[in-house]
Amino acid sequence: MTNQQIVLAARPTGAPTVDHFALRTIDRAEPADGEIVVEQQWLSLDPYMRGRMNEGKSYAAPQPLGEVMIGGTVGEVIESKHASFKAGDTVVGMGGWQQYQLADASQPGVLRKVDATQVPLSAYIGVLGMPGVTAWYGLNRICQPKAGQTIVVSAASGAVGSVVGQLAKAHGCRAVGFAGGADKCKYVVEELGFDACIDYKAHKDVKSLIKALKEAAPDGVDGYFENVGGDILDAVLTQMNAFGRIAVCGMISGYNGGMQPLAQPALILQSRLTVEGFIVGEHMEVWPTALKELGALVISGKLKFRESVAPSIEQAPEAFVGLLKGKNFGKQLVKLV
Amino acid sequence: MTNQQIVLAARPTGAPTVDHFALRTIDRAEPADGEIVVEQQWLSLDPYMRGRMNEGKSYAAPQPLGEVMIGGTVGEVIESKHASFKAGDTVVGMGGWQQYQLADASQPGVLRKVDATQVPLSAYIGVLGMPGVTAWYGLNRICQPKAGQTIVVSAASGAVGSVVGQLAKAHGCRAVGFAGGADKCKYVVEELGFDACIDYKAHKDVKSLIKALKEAAPDGVDGYFENVGGDILDAVLTQMNAFGRIAVCGMISGYNGGMQPLAQPALILQSRLTVEGFIVGEHMEVWPTALKELGALVISGKLKFRESVAPSIEQAPEAFVGLLKGKNFGKQLVKLV
Repeated sequence: MTNQQIVLAARPTGAPTVDHFALRTIDRAEPADGEIVVEQQWLSLDPYMRGRMNEGKSYAAPQPLGEVMIGGTVGEVIESKHASFKAGDTVVGMGGWQQYQLADASQPGVLRKVDATQVPLSAYIGVLGMPGVTAWYGLNRICQPKAGQTIVVSAASGAVGSVVGQLAKAHGCRAVGFAGGADKCKYVVEELGFDACIDYKAHKDVKSLIKALKEAAPDGVDGYFENVGGDILDAVLTQMNAFGRIAVCGMISGYNGGMQPLAQPALILQSRLTVEGFIVGEHMEVWPTALKELGALVISGKLKFRESVAPSIEQAPEAFVGLLKGKNFGKQLVKLV
Repeated sequence: MTNQQIVLAARPTGAPTVDHFALRTIDRAEPADGEIVVEQQWLSLDPYMRGRMNEGKSYAAPQPLGEVMIGGTVGEVIESKHASFKAGDTVVGMGGWQQYQLADASQPGVLRKVDATQVPLSAYIGVLGMPGVTAWYGLNRICQPKAGQTIVVSAASGAVGSVVGQLAKAHGCRAVGFAGGADKCKYVVEELGFDACIDYKAHKDVKSLIKALKEAAPDGVDGYFENVGGDILDAVLTQMNAFGRIAVCGMISGYNGGMQPLAQPALILQSRLTVEGFIVGEHMEVWPTALKELGALVISGKLKFRESVAPSIEQAPEAFVGLLKGKNFGKQLVKLV
């Protein structure tokens, strides 16, 4: 039996291409005592992976060259030599870009059993996984929305942004998104229920973005959930109300280098803003609460999500390259079986 | 009896000059029922006044043209038609750039009686006034220092910065300052007790500032109290430790226009920073606690301060123009009697 894997072949200096990755086929490993083998069904592709491809210092160690790309996965146990797991269990973990994961099941937190009967398994690496909890944490703990306020989120049709806006609506807020293209904006408003969505591709500069935002958020912006940076951040900063709060979750516009400076830092003072960067993996204490809340909303149909699926492990690099360009529409997944 | 006043004569577009101000001499007003007349002894000059000279929207209404410049003052009641005040009382208020203040003493918060027996009266518009409480709030409530951490403050020899560093030392922190010139740095270290002070004028670019900061703060920076912005902010951001906290109190480098962009906003995410702008007048609830603590430190000699004194109301514009260029050394005051 073989195991197909995608490894990091070279470190990109700008935008990555499929040539920075390589497909490798190895023999599937046999589990030793305490280990289990997971047949992975879904791989999550996320913007943070671009940072791991760099050598430089960041909040996490770089992805080693020649090793399997890291990534969140969900799948089914097919062999177990650990008492807590049995074949047929469905588990979530960080199995990486490969078909099979050999895991030391005795390490706490490596694998988490999930119930595949009420929601599709893929949800556990999306709305009920890291992206969903990221949205929950940044919105609730940093933006701290109150009914009647206006919450803005960039990358609004994506895995994180779509949850931010829907949760903001559940808090009684006005939800305004930024997304790339008319189709995504239509989805954000008509399917997800945002009050407005600005197609950033239809605006050539910050001034034009500001004009659109003034129309979409006539009472100003109380909370901003940042996924992209660049011009959109500059535009939103000008519209923040006094004591506004900004959760900095991502700055995908700068992940390939050439991060744009922030034009008017004095607005942080003038509007007495709180700007806070966070990584949800450092706030594990909120996961149970967040997942319980998100799960109830998904099961009741109040929290909608959409997936872009790459059909096989071979397609993962192309899908990831597209994700960084906003080619995905909803949560980007790779189907592994 | 006359009252000399300084009024705003014209709005500057860049750096203000003395020509943007005018000296006006009027008859001293007589108090009506409920009013008092204060002979002002000291006027505080502060960077925030530059913002008030602009017409544009900021956190406060602009200073009207042709009216007395606003400013914090301390002085002595010489006439009173209000039961709560009597001649000889020493009071702090916002009396503006003039010799005599006619005040409606029935309005709560307009005037606060202070005790001139234990500390010099001028302290009530410095270390025991708005600048002192600003330092206290930004450090304690935003930077939240813990023993062993490193706290950095810009404009370290000034009215606010000098208090920030001394309070940080009292918390058991390493205190590092930025100041302009060898004399100020010597004072910051030798008199105020900071662990290190970087003369920013001796460094031509961000890279050089970073090198100096690495030496002065070898364990990185946990809390930063920002008074200036620009290159110093860019340099400090690169040295912030994970979960570092930045209190944005001022950005004097940009007050005359041409605010420098913030070079690397992604550091807010990478280092999971909290960056918070504040104005101490919006946090009146902390004043009693802060003033009690600061007062005890001043009386016991543990909190030192230094003053630059302009000798008369006529000199106020020149002193203010100098303040924006860092020509003052310590708290900038104008002696009014």
